[in-house]
This record gives sequence, structure tokens and C-alpha cells, in this order.
Amino acid sequence: MRPDHPAADQVGSRLDPYVDRYAARALGMTASQIRALFAVASRPEVVSLAGGMPYVAALPLDVVGELMGRLIIERGAVALQYGSGQGDPTLREQICAVMELVGISAHPDDVVVTVGSQQGLDLVTRIFVDPGDVVLAEAPTYVGALGTFAAYQADVMHVAMDDGGLVPEALQEALADLAADGRRAKLLYTVPSHQNPSGVSLTPARRRQVLDICRQADVLVLEDDPYGLLGFDGDPLRALRADDADGVIYLGSFSKTFAPGLRVGWALAPPAVRDKLVLAAEAAVLCPPSFSQIAISTYLQSYSWQEQVKVFRKLYRERRDAMLDALPAALPPGSHWTRPAGGFYVWVTLPPGLDATAMLPRAVTARVAYVPGSAFFADGSGGTSLRLSYCYPEPERIREGVRRLAGVLDQEMQLHETFGVRGGLSGAHPRGQPDAPGPDLR
Amino acid sequence: MRPDHPAADQVGSRLDPYVDRYAARALGMTASQIRALFAVASRPEVVSLAGGMPYVAALPLDVVGELMGRLIIERGAVALQYGSGQGDPTLREQICAVMELVGISAHPDDVVVTVGSQQGLDLVTRIFVDPGDVVLAEAPTYVGALGTFAAYQADVMHVAMDDGGLVPEALQEALADLAADGRRAKLLYTVPSHQNPSGVSLTPARRRQVLDICRQADVLVLEDDPYGLLGFDGDPLRALRADDADGVIYLGSFSKTFAPGLRVGWALAPPAVRDKLVLAAEAAVLCPPSFSQIAISTYLQSYSWQEQVKVFRKLYRERRDAMLDALPAALPPGSHWTRPAGGFYVWVTLPPGLDATAMLPRAVTARVAYVPGSAFFADGSGGTSLRLSYCYPEPERIREGVRRLAGVLDQEMQLHETFGVRGGLSGAHPRGQPDAPGPDLR
Repeated sequence: MRPDHPAADQVGSRLDPYVDRYAARALGMTASQIRALFAVASRPEVVSLAGGMPYVAALPLDVVGELMGRLIIERGAVALQYGSGQGDPTLREQICAVMELVGISAHPDDVVVTVGSQQGLDLVTRIFVDPGDVVLAEAPTYVGALGTFAAYQADVMHVAMDDGGLVPEALQEALADLAADGRRAKLLYTVPSHQNPSGVSLTPARRRQVLDICRQADVLVLEDDPYGLLGFDGDPLRALRADDADGVIYLGSFSKTFAPGLRVGWALAPPAVRDKLVLAAEAAVLCPPSFSQIAISTYLQSYSWQEQVKVFRKLYRERRDAMLDALPAALPPGSHWTRPAGGFYVWVTLPPGLDATAMLPRAVTARVAYVPGSAFFADGSGGTSLRLSYCYPEPERIREGVRRLAGVLDQEMQLHETFGVRGGLSGAHPRGQPDAPGPDLR
Repeated sequence: MRPDHPAADQVGSRLDPYVDRYAARALGMTASQIRALFAVASRPEVVSLAGGMPYVAALPLDVVGELMGRLIIERGAVALQYGSGQGDPTLREQICAVMELVGISAHPDDVVVTVGSQQGLDLVTRIFVDPGDVVLAEAPTYVGALGTFAAYQADVMHVAMDDGGLVPEALQEALADLAADGRRAKLLYTVPSHQNPSGVSLTPARRRQVLDICRQADVLVLEDDPYGLLGFDGDPLRALRADDADGVIYLGSFSKTFAPGLRVGWALAPPAVRDKLVLAAEAAVLCPPSFSQIAISTYLQSYSWQEQVKVFRKLYRERRDAMLDALPAALPPGSHWTRPAGGFYVWVTLPPGLDATAMLPRAVTARVAYVPGSAFFADGSGGTSLRLSYCYPEPERIREGVRRLAGVLDQEMQLHETFGVRGGLSGAHPRGQPDAPGPDLR
């Protein structure tokens, strides 16, 4: 630090000396609950039902290591070099083959490789969303998408879900409300298959309805599909994009079918949008990592990757079962929860009056972590809900985690009975939000 | 494509059906000259003096392949997993040791790992620049920075350079002009060492002056330093950040000292800014690639990486010499050009009346490619200049490329003498720009 600026140094990060220089979009950038949780959940004594980390230890690491080492030795001059902004052509062909599994027929020219599908989210938002523009999203929705939408100062409106996914009537209603206000939605953001955080999927009949509604209202659909191949029963669900090439931008990812540490996802978009995505991607990162792309391309080509996805499916199904078996005895009467048919998450809603955000510090003291429901809403809803993930801990740890959670909930119920509804329970709300009406429309 | 939307399909990308939905920032996203060039320059018969690709074939690929393969086999469950948004802690410590070589003393807590330093540029701009905000940049400046600034709708003002780098008086004058208009600059973007595209470096005396001027005017300096360790003579130049921890955000990169295909760079920023950078990075990509970071960390630890940088320096110096030896006989009287003491580029300015943009198609026909100077200006200046890079082709190819360029220039001069100044030469200007006043202040 500069010796002649001691005052500025002492001010440090408490009083921000740059505050009058930030862009408007940066003023709303504040740390999320997820952040604090990751620090806590990484302590080994805590059973973390919080994070969404895939269980990459189940990969054939010796095979993958051998492939990657050989790739550098034999093709390092390409794999370590800059690549195209749109992504490796061979990988883009393979991505089209992967998307066929969810019913999509696409051309490699329309695929843009991204730094994880999170970057797809960022680039699509960058291209379409001006400050104040409306983005529709499920209630609840992926917390990382909320971060992106906030960074572009979007106005997020939630649309109700039930066990069949997004409710078409609620979508219709939200669009009508907007039209009545003279506004329109730029995008409908949806995770139709094995959604994060709810674990539910949009039914096939509703998929058609949602597409029809959006087409009529001229609203682009942003379909985020990281879990599409991780269904536990039967064939993968047919993607929305499979039935509408012009009205849907599709985001895919290798983070859950292979490994997130390479940061490779993709966007499939109509040609005009794809052109803008490539330019936006180049301004953002020049190009996605060549090594990661060629490594995945080699893995897809030389390993029975679909068999490996079956290994993951079996593993996650066992963990889902462990959690669903343990929950009934653990949750207080009046709770309800989802029964995911794929993906990583169970969404639990506690009886009215309980507050999952206020309860979290007590849960961590009891050595179990989860993500409070309010993290998945832009408007502070979701206070009685929590997301439990079963993807990373082994089944025995899941059972132990749910047991610990049961103990915490018992204490909460006793307090609740002593002090009454919304009595001594509504503790610290980190965002100063009101108690939540539950995961409902807006 | 959808059978029931044939009309929309036929419209394709010529008439963009999404045009009424884009964000304001997307309207200016148009393909750069660099793009078309990369396609051309990749044909083997063309000597490309256009791209800035480091010569990664000079890396010890067998050693690196062995390291990376072992890394997956032994630590794959970490290297293939999500990591922190701020980046790997061990790598951040090593980055501080790397920065000591340019005089910077920093704490790993203040380092944010980015997806190449391009992402550092993007995130800093995202945090500080509202549409219409002024960013000062050298004349000429890095084309990728112009892309980023355009994506955030910044108003770029160029500041004159000479062989000693940015001219402090011109910077002073630009700030005075802004103040007279009641405006301020949010950032001064500078590549002070072995600049892309000019190849010149800011002198030590001017570094102090530039820091003083910016401190007085309360303008943050964004120092981009990918070539800092690639000087051909003596010790590395002292970074601006070494003498001002509060007023400078420093961007570094492993793309030129190791390999660009892993996409690992970093930003060093004061704590308050660092906090915003981490949040912005998470919204953009969640986290940088774990594998890339741990691979570089392992390479830095287990290989004599500074010896490898010496290998690169020697190799690039030989190529610089090949180009500087060939240029005097190739360029018409009245041309001038820079003599880089490091980095990848020579900046050539032709006699008045010649137009490097209009000449490019003829050069490509003669099987040599370069980047026209106008690409490095936000305002269409630079028309008589071109950037020649010597980093990638072997010396014999460089000499051949310059010979071909000489033939093209001979023809241009004959045309020029026949038709006179600004006669038949000012052909197609892809952006419809006027002929350029030269690389000067605005």
C-alpha cells in the first residue's frame, strides 16, 4: 500500500472510496447468502445439503487423466492456443449429437460454446435486456440467473409453479398484467427439466402451452437445461427448443454430465442472435478455453460417455432415495416437499410461521447446511422454504444431515408453539425482507 | 427449423427478426475487421502478420502433458470441480510472486482470477462504466478493449502517443477539455509496456507523470500488462501499480508467458473494487476454470517457468530482428515505424495518401495479412497505419511476408503517383469512415 495514502488505506473496504464512480449496475451488487454458506459448508464437520456440486469423483479419473495428458503431448500447440470466439467446430458438432438426446435437431453453426452455461445466461441477458426490462422466471428460480439479471438491472417477475412446473395460467396472467401496464417481457427464463431449486419438471402438455403462450405474446424463451440428461426414469424429456427453433434460445452444459471444472457450456440460438452472441462473447472473454473444449471433445469421442451418465444417474437416484426416505420423519406436520424425478434438489416448504432464513444459523450450529428459499426469489419471497441438495454427500451423510435438520426443526416448533405464529422466530433477515408469502406468483 | 414458420426461416440472418428486442448495447455489436482476417490468415499460403498468437509450440509439451495428466489422476476430484469465484488461493499467491517481477507488492486477497485478462477488462468496465461515460485510451489502443468498451456503450477518447508512450501533456489536455465540458473520465485504459498495437513502452519518467495527473484528476488507471515480462533488454519495466495501490487496477495474464488456451488472467484491485469484481465474475461465469488454474499453479511450482519465459523472449527477439531488418527496404519513403523493445508488434505508418484499409484485400491477394490501423481506434483514425506482428511466424516467413508486402506497397505507390494524393486509392472503407488524420489525439 502507498505510504503517502494512509488514510485511504485505513478506510479499506468499510467505507468505499470508489463509491461515486461505480456504474449504476454495480450499486446493487451485494454478496448473496450462497456465498456465506459455501464458506461454512466447506468445514468438514458440517453436512452440506447446500451446494450443487456434481459428484465428479465418480468419473474414471485415470482414463480422463491419460486422455488429457496425451492431448497436450500430441496436440498441445492447438489445445493451448487461442481458439475461435464461437468455439471449437468439432465440439460444436458433438454438441448437436448431445442435443439430439433431448429431441433437438440443430446445426453446429448455430451453437456458441460458452464458459459454462452461466456465461450463456450472461451473454443472452447482455444482448436482450436494457435496465428496467422485464424478465419472467419461475417461482422459485436459479439463484445464479437472479445474479445475472440483477447485474443487467432487469426487473424479474416470478411466475407460479406447482408439481407440474410453471403454471401456464399464471404465465398468461403475468403477460396480461404486463400488457395492461403497457409493458412487455423480453424473456421467459425457465429450467423445464429437473429444475434448480425445485426439482420439478414441466409436463409435456404444459411445454406445448408455454410455447404457444410465448409465441403469441412474442416473448423469447430462454431454456436452461443442465439436468436434461439426469432424469432417473425413462427417456429424457423433450426440450422446448425441439419444438420451436425461432422462439427458444437453448443453454446446455457439460458441468453435470461430465465436469464443471472445465467450464464448458453452450448456447443454441437462431442465426441473427448467434451472431450477436459471438460478438458479445469475444468482448467478454475473447474465446472459451481451447484446452477444456478439446479435452471434452476427446472424452466424448473416446469414452463411452453415455454409460458414464448412467453411472451418475444411478448414483444420484440412490441419494435422492436416501433423502426422500428420511424426510417424512424429519419434517414437522404441515410441511410439503417435492419428489424430484431427476437432477440434484428437493424443495421443502415448512408450515406457515417457520422462517428458513432465520433458522439457518441454528442449523449450521447443529452442523447441517441448506440454502434458504428466499435466495431463489428476486422479491424476498420463499421465506418458509429451503433447498436441500442430495448430489454431493454419500447416502449415509444425507441421512445424518436430515437427522440433524430434524433436531433443529423440533426446536423451532417448540419455540413456535411457545411464542405463536411469527413470534420469536422471525430473526435476522439478511436483506431486510418481509416475511414471505411462499413460492407464489410475484 | 419449424415447418410452420417458413417465412421466418427464409428471412434468416439477412433481415433480423429479433431487431426490435435487442438491448441498446447490442445495436452497436458489429463484426470487426480482425474477424474476417482470422479466417483469411488461417489459409496456409498466406503469411499472417495479423494475429497476436503466442508461439506455444516452444513450450515443453511433453513435460506439461505429463503434469496435467497426473493432476487429473491424483487430484481430479478438485481440478474438475467448481471452484471459488475469486479463484484458486494457491494460484493467487503465486500470482503475487509473478507480479513482484514488475515491482508490485500485493496480497493474494486482492487478486481476482479471470477468464483471460479480457474478462478482467470486461468486469472492470461493467463495474465502472455507465452508457456515455468517458474512457481514455491510447491512440492507438488494443482492439479487444475497444470491443469491450463498445459493449458497455462507453465514449472512448484517444490520447496521443509517441515513441515514449502516452504523451502526458496530451492526457492533461484531454482531461482539461473534458472538465471544460463538465465531464469526467471514469478510467484511463493503458498498456504501458510493449503496447499492443504500437510496440512502444511508457518511459519511467512519464509513468510518474501519468500517475500524478490521474491522481489529481481522480481518474482510475486500468493498467493492462500482458507483455510486461516479455521485454528483450534488461529488467522488466516497473508497473504503474507498483507505485499506486489505490489509483490503479492491474490486469495480468498467463496467455503470453505460458499459454492462452487455458484462459487464465487476473485483476489486482483495491479491496472495495475487488469485492465488486468477484460478484460480477460470479454473475458472468460462476468461477474461472478450476482445471486451468490448478494446471498453471502446478506448472509454476514444478517447472522452471522463468527459464521458459527467457526462451520466449529470445525467440520473439529473433523474430523482431527479422522484421526490423526487412522493413527499411520494403516501406516507401516517408514511412515510419516503431522499434519494439519487447512484445509482439511493430506499428507502421505509411506516407500520407496511402490507405492501409483499402490496401488489405490486395495484400491478401498477394498472400500476406496484417491488421489495418483503423481497427485500433474508436473514431476511424489510423487509416495510414498498420500493425505487423512477428510473434507467430518463423523468421524466414516473416522476411517472406515483408517481401510480399513490399510488392503490394510498390504497386500502391505507382497508383498513387498516377492518380495523386487521395486519388484512386481510397477504396472500400468497411465502416464508411473518412480518411484518417493519423494516430493522433482524437
